[in-house]
Amino acid sequence: MSSWKDPEIAGVRALLASRQPAPGAPPPSRQEQRAAMDAFGEMGALPSGCFHEPLTASGVKCERVAPLGAVDGRRILYLHGGGYVGGSPRSHRPLAARLAEAARSTAIVAEYRLAPEHPCPAAVEDALAVYRWMLDHGAEPERTVIAGDSAGGGLTLAMALALKDQGLPQPAGLLLISPWVDLTQSHDTHASKAADDPMISKDRLDESAAAYLGGSDPRDPMASPLFGDLAGLAPLLIQVGSEEALLGDSLMLAERAGHARVDVRLEVWPEMIHVWHAFGGQLAAARRAIAAAGVWMDGRLGG
Amino acid sequence: MSSWKDPEIAGVRALLASRQPAPGAPPPSRQEQRAAMDAFGEMGALPSGCFHEPLTASGVKCERVAPLGAVDGRRILYLHGGGYVGGSPRSHRPLAARLAEAARSTAIVAEYRLAPEHPCPAAVEDALAVYRWMLDHGAEPERTVIAGDSAGGGLTLAMALALKDQGLPQPAGLLLISPWVDLTQSHDTHASKAADDPMISKDRLDESAAAYLGGSDPRDPMASPLFGDLAGLAPLLIQVGSEEALLGDSLMLAERAGHARVDVRLEVWPEMIHVWHAFGGQLAAARRAIAAAGVWMDGRLGG
Repeated sequence: MSSWKDPEIAGVRALLASRQPAPGAPPPSRQEQRAAMDAFGEMGALPSGCFHEPLTASGVKCERVAPLGAVDGRRILYLHGGGYVGGSPRSHRPLAARLAEAARSTAIVAEYRLAPEHPCPAAVEDALAVYRWMLDHGAEPERTVIAGDSAGGGLTLAMALALKDQGLPQPAGLLLISPWVDLTQSHDTHASKAADDPMISKDRLDESAAAYLGGSDPRDPMASPLFGDLAGLAPLLIQVGSEEALLGDSLMLAERAGHARVDVRLEVWPEMIHVWHAFGGQLAAARRAIAAAGVWMDGRLGG
Repeated sequence: MSSWKDPEIAGVRALLASRQPAPGAPPPSRQEQRAAMDAFGEMGALPSGCFHEPLTASGVKCERVAPLGAVDGRRILYLHGGGYVGGSPRSHRPLAARLAEAARSTAIVAEYRLAPEHPCPAAVEDALAVYRWMLDHGAEPERTVIAGDSAGGGLTLAMALALKDQGLPQPAGLLLISPWVDLTQSHDTHASKAADDPMISKDRLDESAAAYLGGSDPRDPMASPLFGDLAGLAPLLIQVGSEEALLGDSLMLAERAGHARVDVRLEVWPEMIHVWHAFGGQLAAARRAIAAAGVWMDGRLGG
């Protein structure tokens, strides 16, 4: 599709195209990719007056983000994306901060262990350790939201399944932004949206999946929570762009969760791309999506 | 499922069970069924201060519903459910009035022609005639929402397709409550939810579909708008209950509309049944769903 109704999305697409490596250049190393993701986040502006500080929770490094106006007692646990092989509290600091501000809450962004050095379920274990630490340090589940984008959205859902299995309380809500919940890449949007998705390809996902799975079953619900028993999970808000290869993951998740009597809200944002929320400086639709997620979290987090 | 988290839904289910005809009793005639639907609506309380009056729009009988606090210039066109074979402004007056109140708008409820006396596309033609009449009488499309439940939700979507085909402006939004958009009954929720749905069965839908189709193709987008080209349609809010045989219609619609770059919001409400909004007196979840639809319409309808 060459023309877009949204006058800003073409600019974001041009920005993304300019960041592709030159033809013939050697592919960036894993460390270079991680550094580039961190630099992207460190470049972005934080909401004015937002404060951040390092924190260690049960041995897991984290960052605590505190926007102005956060209501006492509210908590977000934020699980960043990056295909389970990249991303950090630095790469996702502006996004986490803007979501926290919109929800009038502080957020803890977990620096969970990455693959291939640490395959599944290391990330789930780290996320669970941070959540338990939060509960031990005053967080009330009914005033806590777990949120994540892309692989972090899948991790959020896997964690909610693990909480159920371990008899731990569900949080007040699960916010999933462009979540990756099916590491088998089974939905046909991987093909039908391939030409329109400027960020995500099935090949890249297959590579990341292989790194994260380390040989284990891609249908294991800790890696592909779509295939878990979703009954009893906290309310879900799923936000996804219409141009995403991963659109199908959100559609299948809404279907399975709704069938299992989970309170599900699915928003498909026309013309938007993978985790467009990260382009808040360029896209009004990013700010609107963050605001909508904020209203929903605000309702879930209580006074 | 024998136990429900929602303490009120069991009462509604008991009420519905008590309204089943006695075993061996002759099935009610079409006229008796229509009269019973009207009586259900006329039994229900209107919001206090809500006013209603008859109206004829391009030869189509309608009812205008005016709640207190309606913002000048806002309009809802409401298309009632009833399988295309029943329902009227009387049967749906409390529902339309509560939705209009929540959206701070007046509503016009169209008494479109019913099947089998008037098969497809008579209902679409009548709905279009009323919409055109509204535009000729001061309604602005960008401050008008079309809303409908069940068959009325399908009719809303079919009408939006017809508007596109005729080059007429889309309204500001389309609110679809438990919509019936696939008259072929293709989704497996017709089987998987059969035991849990106390109102809708595939057999009854097949009967109504046959009456409405009058021999024409069930995949005609005027009857089954799921199969139309959805690109370019106004933003959609779809609300559906997890216990519905028609859950799959909403899931498929969200999928196809999202894929076609329509602004789609899908809400699956756990434990809720077909058009639970009609039980506002019994169910807090009905009032919450109406309030949520009201907030969405309020945002679409403008100041």
